[in-house]
Amino acid sequence: MEKSARCIPPLHHEEIHDFDVVELTKDDKKLEGVGIEIKKVELSALTMRKGDRVILDFQDHHVGYFSINIHSVGSPMDAPLTLQVRFAEVAAEFAYTSSEYDGWLSKSWIQEEMIHLDVLPCRLEFPRRYAFRYVEITVIDTSPKWQAVFSEPKIIAVSSADDTKLQKRSFDDWMLQKIYDAGIKTLKDCMMDVFEDGPKRDRRLWLGDLRLQAQANYASFRQNDLVKRCLYLFGAMTTIDGKISANVFTSPAPVPDDTFLFDYSLFFIDTLYDYLNEENNPELFDDLFDIARNQMDLALRYVDEGGKLKLTEGYPVFVDWSNEFDKSTAAQAIMIYTIKRFLVLAEKKEIDPIFYERMLEKMERYAIDKLWDEQKGLFRTNENEYNIASQVWMVLADVFPMKKSREIMEKTVELLFPVRNIATPYMYSHIVEALFHAGMKEEAIKLMKSYWGRMIELGADTFWEAFDPDHPSYSLYGSPIISSYCHAWSCTPVYLLEKYV
Amino acid sequence: MEKSARCIPPLHHEEIHDFDVVELTKDDKKLEGVGIEIKKVELSALTMRKGDRVILDFQDHHVGYFSINIHSVGSPMDAPLTLQVRFAEVAAEFAYTSSEYDGWLSKSWIQEEMIHLDVLPCRLEFPRRYAFRYVEITVIDTSPKWQAVFSEPKIIAVSSADDTKLQKRSFDDWMLQKIYDAGIKTLKDCMMDVFEDGPKRDRRLWLGDLRLQAQANYASFRQNDLVKRCLYLFGAMTTIDGKISANVFTSPAPVPDDTFLFDYSLFFIDTLYDYLNEENNPELFDDLFDIARNQMDLALRYVDEGGKLKLTEGYPVFVDWSNEFDKSTAAQAIMIYTIKRFLVLAEKKEIDPIFYERMLEKMERYAIDKLWDEQKGLFRTNENEYNIASQVWMVLADVFPMKKSREIMEKTVELLFPVRNIATPYMYSHIVEALFHAGMKEEAIKLMKSYWGRMIELGADTFWEAFDPDHPSYSLYGSPIISSYCHAWSCTPVYLLEKYV
Repeated sequence: MEKSARCIPPLHHEEIHDFDVVELTKDDKKLEGVGIEIKKVELSALTMRKGDRVILDFQDHHVGYFSINIHSVGSPMDAPLTLQVRFAEVAAEFAYTSSEYDGWLSKSWIQEEMIHLDVLPCRLEFPRRYAFRYVEITVIDTSPKWQAVFSEPKIIAVSSADDTKLQKRSFDDWMLQKIYDAGIKTLKDCMMDVFEDGPKRDRRLWLGDLRLQAQANYASFRQNDLVKRCLYLFGAMTTIDGKISANVFTSPAPVPDDTFLFDYSLFFIDTLYDYLNEENNPELFDDLFDIARNQMDLALRYVDEGGKLKLTEGYPVFVDWSNEFDKSTAAQAIMIYTIKRFLVLAEKKEIDPIFYERMLEKMERYAIDKLWDEQKGLFRTNENEYNIASQVWMVLADVFPMKKSREIMEKTVELLFPVRNIATPYMYSHIVEALFHAGMKEEAIKLMKSYWGRMIELGADTFWEAFDPDHPSYSLYGSPIISSYCHAWSCTPVYLLEKYV
Repeated sequence: MEKSARCIPPLHHEEIHDFDVVELTKDDKKLEGVGIEIKKVELSALTMRKGDRVILDFQDHHVGYFSINIHSVGSPMDAPLTLQVRFAEVAAEFAYTSSEYDGWLSKSWIQEEMIHLDVLPCRLEFPRRYAFRYVEITVIDTSPKWQAVFSEPKIIAVSSADDTKLQKRSFDDWMLQKIYDAGIKTLKDCMMDVFEDGPKRDRRLWLGDLRLQAQANYASFRQNDLVKRCLYLFGAMTTIDGKISANVFTSPAPVPDDTFLFDYSLFFIDTLYDYLNEENNPELFDDLFDIARNQMDLALRYVDEGGKLKLTEGYPVFVDWSNEFDKSTAAQAIMIYTIKRFLVLAEKKEIDPIFYERMLEKMERYAIDKLWDEQKGLFRTNENEYNIASQVWMVLADVFPMKKSREIMEKTVELLFPVRNIATPYMYSHIVEALFHAGMKEEAIKLMKSYWGRMIELGADTFWEAFDPDHPSYSLYGSPIISSYCHAWSCTPVYLLEKYV
């Protein structure tokens, strides 16, 4: 924990002053059909009465602190000023109200404040951090005798990512450039004192997200101490039997969540493996290897004599938010993938590998004997389902030699594409990587463009937590006001483009 | 202005820790049929989920700052906490919601906050000042995984009234004691850095209220410097032609309102007269006499050759909030009343009184010749209406000798009582005083009990801005959440009981 604390990065501050006054328009090409149009008006020329609203557009996604000057005109201010202020990452959020929201996820995430000001003029400074591009200010009431005037809005944007350390990639392809740039911004806006999953929501460190953020970081900002901090945080807060939580909280003090995901715990090994590939650090390796090994040992308890992974409800595998498909084969593959990485670490530590090698062999054997369908050229699941996730993870796990992996991915494209019922960029990342990994660069780029590129077309400045191109308006939680439109696990093009393009 | 600033009083702070957890009950004997019942429960034993609410009762009206401890129980806090917090002077306010309020008075006065807390545990300290006895806390959302727990609520009550300077009166009559005590509390809770009209709303210095607060102050706290401060404030901020505003604002800097009331401007003279009766202060008299004289000179422009007061729309007379009656005779009387006071001041200043004496004579002549109905024994108005306000102010102005004044008040009781269509304690005070003035002590006390005593029966801790015993639920502004239940102009029993009982 102490070593983790030593790596707390400084937050860089950037003042954002440029903005437009905009209004919402109908625009079928944008998310939810909501576009914006710049109004040719000076903010400080607007004298705002009860019910008036104004939308400020800061032209890009930011994470930070908002402030604005307010004064009154007309008669003396004979009542407080009441404002509703809403912060939005995408314009579509303004088409929804918090009173309508009735999802299971906490309403508290809605970025909305009701402010009473007893004395004007003042500079209104919001103490909370928000993730936003747009600020909507609605005057709930002044009094019939005076109006409110707003001026000099400002954002102090924060991030621990240091732009000066970044050597940006250039692409001839316009869309790849857009995708890369938005990926960088997504990563940057999630880099705070830990790698957050989303600066709007949930604002905390998830292990599955960390793995991808770390990969994108090695390909861009290279602020490896932040990865180190996060690895130590997870390592320091296991359960009594050594299991790592799916996520941890850091404020007011570090505490692990009581949520556990099978694949996330295992990915501690993979994240450690990647880190050590990036930077030789014997001390960290010493500190964390036993904890990594524990994840493997705990996971192996769920493997039966025949090499079959049998998960329980209390320790589910994630793979993707969607529960529309059987994840058993993907889980089997993730485990195989991780044992292979673990064996590399074990060798460095001069640990006797025999037990792990045998388990790997058993699991691969089960995969090939029981799950592989030679006739179809695809992996089935234990429930006899053929889905993309199974192929993708078996390919990433190199269960077959590369030539066969390519055949599998070709068959996947032929029989299982276009992608359906996958809700998150998290799983899309793995599909794209499996295509790259199998040597299908063109297909990989095509999918990247049709997915991340589609978000760009719909107006994304940063990439979203969830996106289904077939249902662009789909929200995991029932309303855009609760959705996260800058979400770490979608920054992966930064890594994929660096590694494969 | 400088002399006014020198008299800014220190605010005394009192910590209030005692409270009950209560629930609302149906109670036909209380205002709007809303009573309270103490719940036998420890606040800190309540683990509150989405939608749960709790009402804290601090057992008396207070003005000040509220704070409370909050922590979470259950899983780690995986979302912000959102609270709605409402402050109420009377329990009936909780029967209304701000979203339903659609009156003309600013919604901003509703004492309600929406609070988001990102990190628990914390001590939530509200920066704004509220006037309240009750605090309702509603949990808008936590998350399904944890609950909020509240403890150690505290009020830091503020007032510039110094209890140690107060020699409270004792009455054998239980109800008079209650009325007196609530009057003292009303006065105290309106004594801040000026005499406020109401600590909930409008929180500012009105001249009509000041006159009555000063009278009550001389009968209790005797903090005359606060009156001095207020007199200087009004005196320092007249219009170019010397007219005094009906009210002034003091924050962030002193500024007069653009509202002018004929009787309020005139009462600067009466308030100065009372002050000098209470405390000899040649400097203040020198500073303010010309300003007082200006109010008289400006008012006299509205008196025609025949001694008739003819007001215009731009400078209306107040008398009472109600516009259900013709105020012309009351206004004529208020002017006569004030000229008499002014002549006393003028004599002290050795000003030639002849002009003012002539105007007084003309106006009294008009009153007696044109408005007095000898047959009925009552004053009529210019619109030939017989109302209470006319009699009350003619009696207070001593237009007739005392014996006749008594006959007028007896006739008033006989023909015009019970009081109808008078909305405010402000006018009721003058009715009671006219009864006392005319020697009808028993009738005066009876009316005081049936009016202020009725508020006590309905649950008042402090006296209200508006109250019509025939329509207890009547609100000037359409909803109790916008009404002021501690309003300076209703503290007058303190003065009336001291002077006459």
